[in-house]
Amino acid sequence: MIRALILGYGFLGKALVKRLLNRPIKELTIVGIANSKGYLYKRDGLQLEKIKESLEDNEGFERGLATELLTKEYIDLLIELTPTNISTGEPGITHIKTALKGEIDVVTANKGPVLLALNELKRIADEKNVVFKYEGTVGGGIPIFSLVNKCLQGDDIISIRGILNGTTNYILTRMHFEGLTFELALREAIMLGIAERNPTLDVEGIDTAVKILILANSIMNLNRNLSDVKIIGVTKVTPEAISTAKENGMTIKLIGSIEDGELSVEPRLIRLNHPLCVHGTLNAINIKSNVLKTLTLIGEGAGESTVASLLNDIYDVIKERHIKIKF
Amino acid sequence: MIRALILGYGFLGKALVKRLLNRPIKELTIVGIANSKGYLYKRDGLQLEKIKESLEDNEGFERGLATELLTKEYIDLLIELTPTNISTGEPGITHIKTALKGEIDVVTANKGPVLLALNELKRIADEKNVVFKYEGTVGGGIPIFSLVNKCLQGDDIISIRGILNGTTNYILTRMHFEGLTFELALREAIMLGIAERNPTLDVEGIDTAVKILILANSIMNLNRNLSDVKIIGVTKVTPEAISTAKENGMTIKLIGSIEDGELSVEPRLIRLNHPLCVHGTLNAINIKSNVLKTLTLIGEGAGESTVASLLNDIYDVIKERHIKIKF
Repeated sequence: MIRALILGYGFLGKALVKRLLNRPIKELTIVGIANSKGYLYKRDGLQLEKIKESLEDNEGFERGLATELLTKEYIDLLIELTPTNISTGEPGITHIKTALKGEIDVVTANKGPVLLALNELKRIADEKNVVFKYEGTVGGGIPIFSLVNKCLQGDDIISIRGILNGTTNYILTRMHFEGLTFELALREAIMLGIAERNPTLDVEGIDTAVKILILANSIMNLNRNLSDVKIIGVTKVTPEAISTAKENGMTIKLIGSIEDGELSVEPRLIRLNHPLCVHGTLNAINIKSNVLKTLTLIGEGAGESTVASLLNDIYDVIKERHIKIKF
Repeated sequence: MIRALILGYGFLGKALVKRLLNRPIKELTIVGIANSKGYLYKRDGLQLEKIKESLEDNEGFERGLATELLTKEYIDLLIELTPTNISTGEPGITHIKTALKGEIDVVTANKGPVLLALNELKRIADEKNVVFKYEGTVGGGIPIFSLVNKCLQGDDIISIRGILNGTTNYILTRMHFEGLTFELALREAIMLGIAERNPTLDVEGIDTAVKILILANSIMNLNRNLSDVKIIGVTKVTPEAISTAKENGMTIKLIGSIEDGELSVEPRLIRLNHPLCVHGTLNAINIKSNVLKTLTLIGEGAGESTVASLLNDIYDVIKERHIKIKF
């Protein structure tokens, strides 16, 4: 039995708990759930059906740091889902390091630590012979890392291009199909809850750049940082530019790319019937490789679908532990 | 070291040998290559760079049945690439059964045996504790079986829809963009070598039905056969029908589907900006599932890209043997 701690109880943590409640994984027990204020912990496993929406409202809620649990209690797996901070990576980096050093497997959807400390975290995981998985950091539920690792063995990845931000894709889609201005489309996206109230990271292309970096460093071992990415957001895309593209069977999409070792994020012209040209909040990732030549994956890049990535990573942890136990 | 026999030396066998020549797999030695007339065999491994295009022209070519090699010599892996026969499954079924019964792992791109004998072959493989992989049978290089098995763990597949035949997709694409009739587009496809001279299996939807069946039986454990699939080909699709669709932002594509336990292949209306709506010889597969909701994969469904599927299956065999040896 794998004893897991969920650290971070926001949208994704709650969605994961809901799924585990409806469809338990027999090899997995959630022994703790923590947020920034404290934690719920029960050695024999929490009763998920009884947990209240607001963690602090639960009987037995302890104020304190979740890292205490990681060092003091017997935990096998940390599911790290605290909010992303792309400047410091904290508190995620500290959580993940503490876990890995304590020989605890880690599954995360937190982009900060993977962006800022991937090599170090991988090194610690290797040294301690534990699993460190982060499928949910890029493309939501689209299993891009698993796919490259487990389904394209023997092939060589040459380039990656993608629409990796649902908010900007929604905005550009509305501009294309309805002729809206950027400002109007953004306002609509905020009203619908698709864009955050402060949409800077999305519309300036930073979120896409972060994902492109994670792909570049993780899949192509490029060891780059944010300053290596040429970044142009979508704020200056005009309805006129899109309209001209449209007349030529094209549109404008915010494309993140890793081509010839160069990383960039910018609005680009793309043919409407190109596989990468998806609309609404969809994400799409295109891989070029030596043998397969080209493969495109399309799916929802955020929201509840990200739980699929967490589950797949958790099953990888279970399999890995199973192999270890067999030896 | 894994000692492999390639059985079937047509387009795909040659493409695989070419790739292995350019980029050898260090854990793999090709000890034999066979066709319907006989075989080349060398206990220490064949020198791939010296093998002539026509197998019979090679020094040391022995007339005889490749199954003799499988039973008499020490072989670890059969790579079965003989031509597909969807009526009998032969000679593929005999080859694969002989191998599995002899505790030899099998990788194949031959649709016949998987269509007609999947359960039996899986049962033998389980009994003998060997690997039986057939990624190349559906969608060319698109790693659909690997993806479902290894990247969507913990999710439940609800439905599958796809454009699974490049020839008919090319024909429908030309009808859509150029206004060609079916007959003209087919003639063009034959001239370009995209369609076979006898295109019946493709244009009547049989090839798509075979692939839908393999997906249904393999991924969704439905245990159906060809007579359970409602099949309508593309021969009656008119330029007028496509033109009307086009006026409404749609087109007509040959869609194979597994929905609510029903299997069908038929020309269907599809929105031009739907992720599944790909053009030319591209294939596309859309999966609906409980957690991820929707994922679409797009790639070349035939030709050399299928080598990617063979390689991935071969690496799975290597990994599996590696785990066994460790015990």
